[in-house]
Amino acid sequence: MVAHRHPAFATPRVFAPVITPFTKDLRIDAPRFVAFCRWLVGQGAGLALFGTNSEANSLGLTERHALLDDVIKAGVDPAHLLPGTGSCALPDAIALTRHACEAGCAGALMLPPFFYKGVSDDGLFAYYSDVIQAIGSDQLRVLLYHIPQFTGVPITHTLIERLITAYPRTVVGIKDSSGDWANTEAMLRKFPGFAVFPASEALLGKALPLGAAGCISATANIQPQAIASLLNATTLEERAVWEGKVATVRLAVQAQPMIPALKHIVAHFANDESWTRVRPPLTPMNPAQSGALLQQLQALDFSMPAMATLATVAA
Amino acid sequence: MVAHRHPAFATPRVFAPVITPFTKDLRIDAPRFVAFCRWLVGQGAGLALFGTNSEANSLGLTERHALLDDVIKAGVDPAHLLPGTGSCALPDAIALTRHACEAGCAGALMLPPFFYKGVSDDGLFAYYSDVIQAIGSDQLRVLLYHIPQFTGVPITHTLIERLITAYPRTVVGIKDSSGDWANTEAMLRKFPGFAVFPASEALLGKALPLGAAGCISATANIQPQAIASLLNATTLEERAVWEGKVATVRLAVQAQPMIPALKHIVAHFANDESWTRVRPPLTPMNPAQSGALLQQLQALDFSMPAMATLATVAA
Repeated sequence: MVAHRHPAFATPRVFAPVITPFTKDLRIDAPRFVAFCRWLVGQGAGLALFGTNSEANSLGLTERHALLDDVIKAGVDPAHLLPGTGSCALPDAIALTRHACEAGCAGALMLPPFFYKGVSDDGLFAYYSDVIQAIGSDQLRVLLYHIPQFTGVPITHTLIERLITAYPRTVVGIKDSSGDWANTEAMLRKFPGFAVFPASEALLGKALPLGAAGCISATANIQPQAIASLLNATTLEERAVWEGKVATVRLAVQAQPMIPALKHIVAHFANDESWTRVRPPLTPMNPAQSGALLQQLQALDFSMPAMATLATVAA
Repeated sequence: MVAHRHPAFATPRVFAPVITPFTKDLRIDAPRFVAFCRWLVGQGAGLALFGTNSEANSLGLTERHALLDDVIKAGVDPAHLLPGTGSCALPDAIALTRHACEAGCAGALMLPPFFYKGVSDDGLFAYYSDVIQAIGSDQLRVLLYHIPQFTGVPITHTLIERLITAYPRTVVGIKDSSGDWANTEAMLRKFPGFAVFPASEALLGKALPLGAAGCISATANIQPQAIASLLNATTLEERAVWEGKVATVRLAVQAQPMIPALKHIVAHFANDESWTRVRPPLTPMNPAQSGALLQQLQALDFSMPAMATLATVAA
């Protein structure tokens, strides 16, 4: 079935699932977060705030609410924002999604409720449907979030088809974090127009010709410009060069626990140790791990440009 | 290692993971909930509010907060209460656990954070430790909640040992919902004094002689008095009779989706259809399913006594 390609997702884009800095007592460090968001936008990335790599589910409802406000108040155009708003609890999902919609965000990226396992498509349809109807706005754009390795609750093609049929102007896309190319490919072929974001930039070479909407990718936190260049490449040769550059960095980071690794890299280039903090149940990298990772990146001539602005803003 | 058996859990008890009624628009129906809580206490059960069978993770933070207050305001002795207070987000877990502690509850039953998988014992220790230290009260009693089939995050014996060692007066027990008797037995033998609640009353025959603290069991919502009688049996013969009675009901209910089934049974005996509602992603039973279940229970001469009081209070 042909879905409606929403203009907000007409041109392939890269979104960073923005990592979240914490203060010493593990509160959200809003000034550092906002500064980093501005840096990412300056580097050509959209902001998938409150994603898996943002430790979103380790943040409280009111924390997420306030932080989105902080980012917008700081002058970031809401058209760049794709906040995660799914939650196990329907009222929380409604509150977060409504807030994203009213703030004028490009869309809301919605996890399914992920505590119960083996739930039916009927139950998941009811969940998404209840959120959409509670908000009742033609400005709402929902993107589904398929990440079964964490949720244990897959978004099936049957569910997608039911949601697109019922809400063609609202349910406009999906992030497929399964890493299962067969699934991404099948969705791209089955639902032309639907904004499909594959698991990482590694799949763009195959996904873009089939109409992928870009990517929402962990390493967009540290190499947004390179991924944007990959997306904007006008020749196959140019694309291949960027793919190679981007891949070597991705492979180095992927070999480590992803979130602590991203935070260590940002801490290093921002010269700001506080970025290394994570909330339990995650744990920071040990110095041996992080030292080895940074050496590896140095050997690749990797750097994050213009990070000095972060220190200024966050000071 | 010998753990401290807290007086609150000295005598084996049955706790019901109280099912949660909803209004037509899926808000929490506090009056019905409170009436049912009073009925359960009258039947000899403690109240494990906000458990898996309570759809706790489908309830918002403020909803859980307010509902605990409602129960206590209605005159239920907090010594009967063992609310679930775990959450993926540390600040939410702290807020809920502090509230339970300040309200004088018997304990707080804490899920691990359950979004991320493959997390380390170090990370889980930090999570529980941060909650305990943030509250900083010698009135706090934490029971761990091991339900890996839903969380994907097991509570290992190494973690238990670390927590008991660090917080011997605070980390006082565990609910083992894995259904893996080998695990329950190992904990009972390894940690004498630790208040171990096996997955269901079906395991009490084996668990009580090893020092189990009782059970927190789904069907305690519908047969609290029978399970209490099982716990209080003074002879093996008496216990065997109650075990048989309780098991036939459990087997009938277990064959169905548990939460919708429990709600249908309560709806039937309270003569109050509104009890059948569930929040997405759960779905209600269809009439054929629920009809068959009720017939099966009728054939067992099953009934819930004194449920008329519910209708009165909730009217």
